[in-house]
Amino acid sequence: MKGLAILGSTGSIGRNALSVVAEHPEEFRVVGLAAGRNAARLAEQVQHFRPAVVAVETPEAAAELKARLKTAATPDILVGQEGARTVATLPEADLVLSAMVGAVGLAPTYAAIRAGKDVALANKETLVAAGSLVMQAVQEHGVALIPVDSEHSAIFQAMHGHSKEEVRSLWLTASGGPFRTWSREQLAAATPREALRHPNWAMGAKITIDSATMMNKALEVIEAAVLFGLPPERIRVFIHPQSIIHSLVEFVDGSVLAQLGWPDMRLPIAYALTYPRRLPLNGEPLDLARVARLTFEPPDLERFPALALGYEAAAIGGTMPAVLNAANEVAVAAFLAGRLPFLGIPRVVADTMAAHQPEPLASLEQVLAVNDWARDRADRLVRQGTGAIS
Amino acid sequence: MKGLAILGSTGSIGRNALSVVAEHPEEFRVVGLAAGRNAARLAEQVQHFRPAVVAVETPEAAAELKARLKTAATPDILVGQEGARTVATLPEADLVLSAMVGAVGLAPTYAAIRAGKDVALANKETLVAAGSLVMQAVQEHGVALIPVDSEHSAIFQAMHGHSKEEVRSLWLTASGGPFRTWSREQLAAATPREALRHPNWAMGAKITIDSATMMNKALEVIEAAVLFGLPPERIRVFIHPQSIIHSLVEFVDGSVLAQLGWPDMRLPIAYALTYPRRLPLNGEPLDLARVARLTFEPPDLERFPALALGYEAAAIGGTMPAVLNAANEVAVAAFLAGRLPFLGIPRVVADTMAAHQPEPLASLEQVLAVNDWARDRADRLVRQGTGAIS
Repeated sequence: MKGLAILGSTGSIGRNALSVVAEHPEEFRVVGLAAGRNAARLAEQVQHFRPAVVAVETPEAAAELKARLKTAATPDILVGQEGARTVATLPEADLVLSAMVGAVGLAPTYAAIRAGKDVALANKETLVAAGSLVMQAVQEHGVALIPVDSEHSAIFQAMHGHSKEEVRSLWLTASGGPFRTWSREQLAAATPREALRHPNWAMGAKITIDSATMMNKALEVIEAAVLFGLPPERIRVFIHPQSIIHSLVEFVDGSVLAQLGWPDMRLPIAYALTYPRRLPLNGEPLDLARVARLTFEPPDLERFPALALGYEAAAIGGTMPAVLNAANEVAVAAFLAGRLPFLGIPRVVADTMAAHQPEPLASLEQVLAVNDWARDRADRLVRQGTGAIS
Repeated sequence: MKGLAILGSTGSIGRNALSVVAEHPEEFRVVGLAAGRNAARLAEQVQHFRPAVVAVETPEAAAELKARLKTAATPDILVGQEGARTVATLPEADLVLSAMVGAVGLAPTYAAIRAGKDVALANKETLVAAGSLVMQAVQEHGVALIPVDSEHSAIFQAMHGHSKEEVRSLWLTASGGPFRTWSREQLAAATPREALRHPNWAMGAKITIDSATMMNKALEVIEAAVLFGLPPERIRVFIHPQSIIHSLVEFVDGSVLAQLGWPDMRLPIAYALTYPRRLPLNGEPLDLARVARLTFEPPDLERFPALALGYEAAAIGGTMPAVLNAANEVAVAAFLAGRLPFLGIPRVVADTMAAHQPEPLASLEQVLAVNDWARDRADRLVRQGTGAIS
């Protein structure tokens, strides 16, 4: 039995992971859960999976959780960053699923790696903001870092059994999001409600907006470069609206391996949880005759400038990807709150990047300081209305 | 350096293999070549690759080859089945490429395996007609049997690093051939010239006709069942007219891995020659944006009854697949000679199968005797004109 700790258990990835665990109770023991403020959902999870330790973001959420748990066997309830870090480093945990959204997930994930835990990684910031630091820790502590993101999981699966030296390039697929066919004029007037209507994937709000701007793919290019150790120019992006081929690996001989499946996050999550084994998973088998056609087109960097920013940040490296990521978090929140137009998102990110003097990555503290600086800078840009000039 | 012997060096697969060898002279030493009667082409190959031993089918071809080779360093020139067997078992050969067309390739391939050679297998008959015997010899002698066929190579590549227990099913793709959209009435009048116009692949005549009848896919289902050790009902066929996805593996968790590439036989040949490594290969990289769309449809067993015969033969097992294969060889030759209509091909095969009392596989002699019986029976059916009644 694998001892499993989940950071971000009440989010989309966390809930899907627990549904995989519920399907294979013989495989996993849930030893710890960390969540934000959704005490109601966390209480249900605690009653079902009986972890010994849980962590929530605030004292209020802790109090609510305590009130909701009427059983005698109440877990230890911890609070804040320190609580998440404790869950991430529990001695009983063999594998930590890192599924918090945003830079807040970085420190506990880093702590898990340094505590020698294998990590199933859904938190993008870990590799985007602190890539080389994290990969160095992975090396030093000899742990496995298994991507959960459908695209990186696809590449990870396709590369299994092959060596990096045999890889010529990686091809990330992108659905193109809800605005794939929109003109720049239409994009300028896009509302949060429209941007949240993703055609294929059911995901959290932040990542759905990232999909609409294609910043999602920008972050994935940066992540893939770090995780698979390839320069960004060897990572290509194809628009594939059906989201059936999740990504591809081109080998030196010209052969290409692709991973396919219905758009269902349970699949890459289950693979990450059970790697290197595969366990049977309930779900309708993929049927290519029903899919009938798969289409591909090159991405349009004019309408989706976020993708070009991703390649730029990856090529500059150092602290620049952390700046891109932090500025994007602020810009997306402002867009969702109606304080920034859609095309203001890449504009705020670009302007924040332009104001940043990149440094080589040196420490987590540096990354967090750069993150704070970029958030602050982006916030000021939003308030100044820079983003509105598109 | 790998010592390489090629059975069928002047055919389509053999020539492509030698072009791969020419691209990587540091990797291979060509120690033996066996061919049919194309002495002119074989002479060129001998002059370029300098094998110590060659074999041809007839004394006439041997005399012509000798006359054409003006160099002092003439190789040993052997004749007939025994010559092919000698090439297949040369002490200097580490790997034997089995690329003769038809049942004639069976005995030397079997001999190579029993001599402890790794085998890159393009000869379909080896697994179709003598499947369990061959796989037993592969086990006993601990050799690698690497498929060259694009579909089986795709599955072999997608399964690399994974265990058979993780596989739920295999999906073979089929171009559908030149007659994919033809009605049964049109098929009844199809000519050899029309059937030889394959939309995607440049191959030999026999295999091109097999592609038009879809007997090719029937043989591949039988081969895949033997090679990958799965029951035929877990092997599915999809029509995929673009021939970009060469086949797929569905795993127990619902994840699917596919191998893609331009339709170029050099790719699976090179993989088989260099397995388990991949070497750089000249050629244009696959471009999904240029491909733009991939389509899939279920096969039509009404218009292409050969496929159903393949599943039937695979399910019956024993000597039945050898009968299917031998009858098909005779029927295809008759069709190409204008002595049998197109729809007569599956009819002759079905009637030959109906006349056969299948036995469990016991020996190569038995397989060859069954092969002879089926050829004779099919030949009589052709001469009686049974095939014309469609």
